[in-house]
Amino acid sequence: MLDSVVRRELQEAVGASHFFDSPADLLAYSYDATPLYQAMPDAVIRCADAAQVGAVMKICSRYCVPVVPRGSGTNLSAGTVPVKGGLVLDLSGLKRIVEIDQENLTVTVEPGVVTKQLHAAVEALGLFYPPDPGSLVISTLGGNIAECAGGLRGLKYGTTKDYVLGLEVILSSGELLRTGGKNTKDVAGYDLTKLLVGSEGTLGIVTQATLKLLPLPEAKRTALAFFTSLENAARAVSQIIAARIIPATLEFMDNATIRVVDEFTGIGLPTDMAAVLLMEQDGPEVICERDLAQMAGICRGVGAVEVKVAATAEEGLKLMSARRAALSALARKRPTTILEDATVPRSRLAEMVRAIQQIAAKYALEMCTFGHAGDGNLHPTCMTDERDREEIQRVEAAFAEIFAAAITFGGTITGEHGVGLAKAGYLDWKVGPTGIALMKGLKAAFDPCGLLNPGKLFAGETRRRVTVHL
Amino acid sequence: MLDSVVRRELQEAVGASHFFDSPADLLAYSYDATPLYQAMPDAVIRCADAAQVGAVMKICSRYCVPVVPRGSGTNLSAGTVPVKGGLVLDLSGLKRIVEIDQENLTVTVEPGVVTKQLHAAVEALGLFYPPDPGSLVISTLGGNIAECAGGLRGLKYGTTKDYVLGLEVILSSGELLRTGGKNTKDVAGYDLTKLLVGSEGTLGIVTQATLKLLPLPEAKRTALAFFTSLENAARAVSQIIAARIIPATLEFMDNATIRVVDEFTGIGLPTDMAAVLLMEQDGPEVICERDLAQMAGICRGVGAVEVKVAATAEEGLKLMSARRAALSALARKRPTTILEDATVPRSRLAEMVRAIQQIAAKYALEMCTFGHAGDGNLHPTCMTDERDREEIQRVEAAFAEIFAAAITFGGTITGEHGVGLAKAGYLDWKVGPTGIALMKGLKAAFDPCGLLNPGKLFAGETRRRVTVHL
Repeated sequence: MLDSVVRRELQEAVGASHFFDSPADLLAYSYDATPLYQAMPDAVIRCADAAQVGAVMKICSRYCVPVVPRGSGTNLSAGTVPVKGGLVLDLSGLKRIVEIDQENLTVTVEPGVVTKQLHAAVEALGLFYPPDPGSLVISTLGGNIAECAGGLRGLKYGTTKDYVLGLEVILSSGELLRTGGKNTKDVAGYDLTKLLVGSEGTLGIVTQATLKLLPLPEAKRTALAFFTSLENAARAVSQIIAARIIPATLEFMDNATIRVVDEFTGIGLPTDMAAVLLMEQDGPEVICERDLAQMAGICRGVGAVEVKVAATAEEGLKLMSARRAALSALARKRPTTILEDATVPRSRLAEMVRAIQQIAAKYALEMCTFGHAGDGNLHPTCMTDERDREEIQRVEAAFAEIFAAAITFGGTITGEHGVGLAKAGYLDWKVGPTGIALMKGLKAAFDPCGLLNPGKLFAGETRRRVTVHL
Repeated sequence: MLDSVVRRELQEAVGASHFFDSPADLLAYSYDATPLYQAMPDAVIRCADAAQVGAVMKICSRYCVPVVPRGSGTNLSAGTVPVKGGLVLDLSGLKRIVEIDQENLTVTVEPGVVTKQLHAAVEALGLFYPPDPGSLVISTLGGNIAECAGGLRGLKYGTTKDYVLGLEVILSSGELLRTGGKNTKDVAGYDLTKLLVGSEGTLGIVTQATLKLLPLPEAKRTALAFFTSLENAARAVSQIIAARIIPATLEFMDNATIRVVDEFTGIGLPTDMAAVLLMEQDGPEVICERDLAQMAGICRGVGAVEVKVAATAEEGLKLMSARRAALSALARKRPTTILEDATVPRSRLAEMVRAIQQIAAKYALEMCTFGHAGDGNLHPTCMTDERDREEIQRVEAAFAEIFAAAITFGGTITGEHGVGLAKAGYLDWKVGPTGIALMKGLKAAFDPCGLLNPGKLFAGETRRRVTVHL
C-alpha cells in the first residue's frame, strides 16, 4: 500500500480525478492479456499529459515507488502485470495524433493512439504505417513501441523498430529525454531510440513518438494454398523466397488451426489439409498480379492440392480474416488459451512445426500452430485450463521444450511478444550470461533504482535448461 | 610506449609477425581519412582471427591499454585516430565471407570484408546489400557497422543499421558476445545488435556479422535534372515525395560542385546551373520506367531547364559516376578537403543549402554542397589548406555555424559519418546533457575502464554554442 504522504503528493500532482485506488480499480489493472499472471498494484494513475508523467516519476523516484507504464494491456508476456506492486501508469489518455508531416513522411503520436486509428488516419492520405500486430484494433502505439510489435507484414516491411525515428521519453528520474527526430539518417551518438523500442517499459516511459511512413501500396492481392503435407508447405515458402519474391504476407496455419478456424468462421476451409499458406502481395497492380501468379505456380509445383487466388479485394479480405480469426477461434475451445511466439530462421520452419507437434503429443496437450511463415515467427498455441494445475505443469514443461527447440534451430524465445514476466526465466537461454550482465548494466544506466516495470525481463532464477532431442 | 612486459605478452598472444611498432608502422596508423587529426599509437596488431582479438583484449584489459579497432580507416570523423595512444587493432585481415544463406536471405561476414566485394558476391546470386557509402570500394563492413554507414540508397533502403541482424563481438574484457542471429523478428531482451551498430568501436569489437539481404532489383533507370534555382530543385524533391514516389536515389549537387565535377570528369554538365538532381529508380522494369517518367515530369513542371533520362544502364552509370566523382573532384582543388555531413529533414533542404552558402560567404571560404537530397543528408565540403592556421580557424567557425543551423532546422550534426573525435564537441548540441549522461552510462556498462576507442564521442568540453540567425 502507498504511504499516505506519497498518495497525497501523487493526488496533488495529477489531480484526484486521475488517481484511482478502489479495489475494483486495482483489480482491473492487476492483469493483462496474458493468462496465468496477476498481481495487484497499489494505485493507478490515468495520465493526462507528459507533464503529469514527469511529475509522477519525480515523486516515485523520491519515494522509490515502482511504476508500470501501460497502454491497452494487450501484451502476451505479462509485461504490464504489476508484480512488485506500486503504480500502474495508464497512458491511454495521451491519444493525440500530433502531426502527419506529408513532406517528411512522418507521423508524430502520443502513446495512447490505437494502432488501427493511426492506420486509418495515414491511409486516408495515401500513406502507410506497416506494423500490424494481431491486437491492432485495441493495442496502443506506446505498447507497440514498448514491445517492438511485429505482425503479418513483418517479412516485407519489418517491425515497429524499423519505423520509430524519434522519441520523447520520461526517465525514471522524471527528466525528459528527446531522441532522434525526423531524420532518416542520424548517427549522433548511441542509438537510444532503437534501444528504447522493445525495452518493455523498463528504461523509460514514451510520451511521444515520431514514426516513419511509406507511400500506401497501390494494390493488394491475396491467395490461399492448401497442402497435404507440412513439408510441402515449407518447401513452397522456401521456393517463393528462392524465386526472389518477398510477399507482403506469407502466413501459415497447421491442420489443428484450420479445423478450429473453419468451425468458428464457417468459411469452408478443407479441414483434412495438413497446412494452409496465406499469401499476399502489395504494390503496383501489375506486380501484385505477376507475383501472385508466380507464387501460385510454385505452390502447385510443390504439390499444393488447391490454390485459391482472390478475385477481388473483398474476397482477399475474407481470406485474410480467416487467418486473423485464429486466436479468437482457438480461444473458444477451452477456458485458457496460451499463445506463444517461438521463432526460427525461415529455413527451419517445417522442422520447428514438427517439433511442436511432437512435444504437444508427448505431453498430451491440445496445441495448434499458426503464424508468420515468411519470417519464421510461429505461434504455437495451447488450449488448456488454468484451474487444472497438473495440466498447466505439462503446458509449462512443453513450452520450455519448444523454446529450447527454437534455440537449437538458431531461433529465439520470442519473435514479437517480448520477454516480460512470462519468459524472463528463459532470456538467458538466448542471450547467455554475458548478454544478461550487459543488459542489466544498460538497465542500471537508465534506471539506477530499478523503479520502471520491475521484475520484467530479468528473472530471479533462470529456468533449468531442458534437453530436446530433435 | 608499451611496457616491455605488455609488449612481450601481446607478441606471444598473436605471434611476432602480427605485431608492429616500427616508427613507419606507427605513422601509417596515426591518421585516417579525416584531415587535421593525427596521433601516434604505441603499437599495431594485424589480427588473424577473433580468438586473437579476444586474447589481445584480455591482455589490454589487464594492463589498461587503450585499443582502437580499425578497418580501412576511410572514416571522416577521425574515428580511428589513436588519440590516447595504445594499440591500433587492424581487422582487415578478417576478411572471409563466411556464408551466404540463400534460404534465409542473410550473409555472414568477417569485419575486414570490403563493402564492394560483398556487393559483388551477393549480386552474383541475384541478391542485394543496399548500404553503399561513398568509400565502398575500399571501406570494410566492420567500419560500416561501427559508423552505421549510409550512402546514396538510404532514402529507399535505409542504412547499415537496417541490415545488421546479428553480431559476434569481443568485449573490452576479452569475453565473446553473440547478439541476434538470422531471425528478422527477435525481441529477446534489449536490442544489443542495433546499439552496437554505430557505436564507433567504443562498446565492442565486431568479429563477425550476419546481414540481411534483399532480392536484387530487376532493373534500374537514371535521370538528371538541371535547375536555375535551388528552390526549384528542392520543390522537385518535395513534389516527388508528395507524389508518393520513393526513388532509390535522389542526389543533389549545387553550382559550385557542378563546376568542379564537370572540370574533373569532362562529362559536359551545364556549369551555369544552380543545382542538379540525380534520380534513380530500381525495381521491375515497368515501374522504373513509370516512376522515372513521372519524376521527369515533376522536374519539368517546377521549372527544370533540362531533364536527361538515361537510355541505357551504361548511360545511367555514367551519370551516376559524375555524382560519385564529387569528392575526388573537390579534393583536387586545394591541399585540404573537409567533407561534413550535417543533415536536416528533407523539407528543410533548400533553407539548409542556402544557409551553408551564406555561412561560407561570411567566412570567405570555398565551399561546395552536394549530398543525398532525398533524406536531407548534405555534404557541405570545404576546400582549404590545413597549413593556413587562420583559414582553418574560419573553417571551424563556419562548420560550427553549419551544425547549429542543422539543429535549428530539426536536423542533426551527423547523418552518416559518425561523431568520432571531429564532432565530439558538438554531440551535446544534438542530444543534450541528459542524452550525454545516458550514453556515458551505456559506455560504462560495456567498457567500465574506458579502453575501447577512448576520446571518441564524448568531448572533454562541449563547444560553445554559436548563435545562428536564419
